[in-house]
Amino acid sequence: GFAVRISVRGEGSVLPLAEAAEPGAPARPCPCPLPSGDTALSRLVRRLLSARSSLDLCLFSFSCPQLARAVQLLHRRGVRVRLVTDAQYMGLHGSQIGRLRHAGIQVRHDQHSGYMHHKFAIVDRRMLITGSLNWTTQAIQSNRENVLVVEDAELAELWCKSMSTDGKDSFSS
Amino acid sequence: GFAVRISVRGEGSVLPLAEAAEPGAPARPCPCPLPSGDTALSRLVRRLLSARSSLDLCLFSFSCPQLARAVQLLHRRGVRVRLVTDAQYMGLHGSQIGRLRHAGIQVRHDQHSGYMHHKFAIVDRRMLITGSLNWTTQAIQSNRENVLVVEDAELAELWCKSMSTDGKDSFSS
Ligand SMILES: [Zn+2]
Ligand SMILES: [Zn+2]
Repeated sequence: GFAVRISVRGEGSVLPLAEAAEPGAPARPCPCPLPSGDTALSRLVRRLLSARSSLDLCLFSFSCPQLARAVQLLHRRGVRVRLVTDAQYMGLHGSQIGRLRHAGIQVRHDQHSGYMHHKFAIVDRRMLITGSLNWTTQAIQSNRENVLVVEDAELAELWCKSMSTDGKDSFSS
Repeated sequence: GFAVRISVRGEGSVLPLAEAAEPGAPARPCPCPLPSGDTALSRLVRRLLSARSSLDLCLFSFSCPQLARAVQLLHRRGVRVRLVTDAQYMGLHGSQIGRLRHAGIQVRHDQHSGYMHHKFAIVDRRMLITGSLNWTTQAIQSNRENVLVVEDAELAELWCKSMSTDGKDSFSS
């Protein structure tokens, strides 16, 4: 399981939020519908679905169908979605990259040596969602992970820039 | 390479800092002395070495000798160092866990199913260092990674708590 913590800069409030699942809980198949209830996954999805203009994703691996569905939903709503992913990992079993690309989402793969190991999302260039969590069913259900949400346009802008830099070659191709 | 960004809550300043190495630069053997100059690794090490009372580490994998040397140095200075790591990864080639344990540092391994996938450090319970970076030579030299430093005691406390929870079984053993 993982925890989502919300950090709102300026207001200085930090809300601790409960775990998605007990550590060590057995892995279940990830059902496709959007998650409901008050789990860390549903909170993460709600943050993503708050996007009105843009969603920038820099993800080492992406196999969770629920998160892919949320991203697709935003794309259909007209939100500009950009995704940079690792070239070696995007072909792996269960990857959602093909599905997203098929849906018309702008996907780029980083082909530098080493890994594109980021795991962050930027909502409307104002909210940074970052941490240890790969967007995989395994990570969401079985690992100990953390996700930090920071509402800070300056910070979000910095991460956006590093995304452009790290994905430079692939974005210009 | 990776970038270290410093976020000082309250002051509201965010300092973008340069990359440690060009993305795609060839991997070099990681020399043991502490890094000098103005690289992302040296900035990370300086943040760690600012610890006066405690350093809490929750690291999926730890093979970088330079970071291990910094942690050992803090231990010798009397800083209370605690480390939780993943049970499956701690025995891997090049792991620094044995060396740290040998030096007398309190090391615990998380043996739940799934991975203890966190990659964060907490300095003096006031500064959270978190992101995608595993503390490995491969990640530091070859990957695209990000590290966020947040000076915020409330946030640091939350991460400390999750560390105790996630490492619960192993800490009580
Ligand atoms: Zn958990
Ligand atoms: Zn880099």
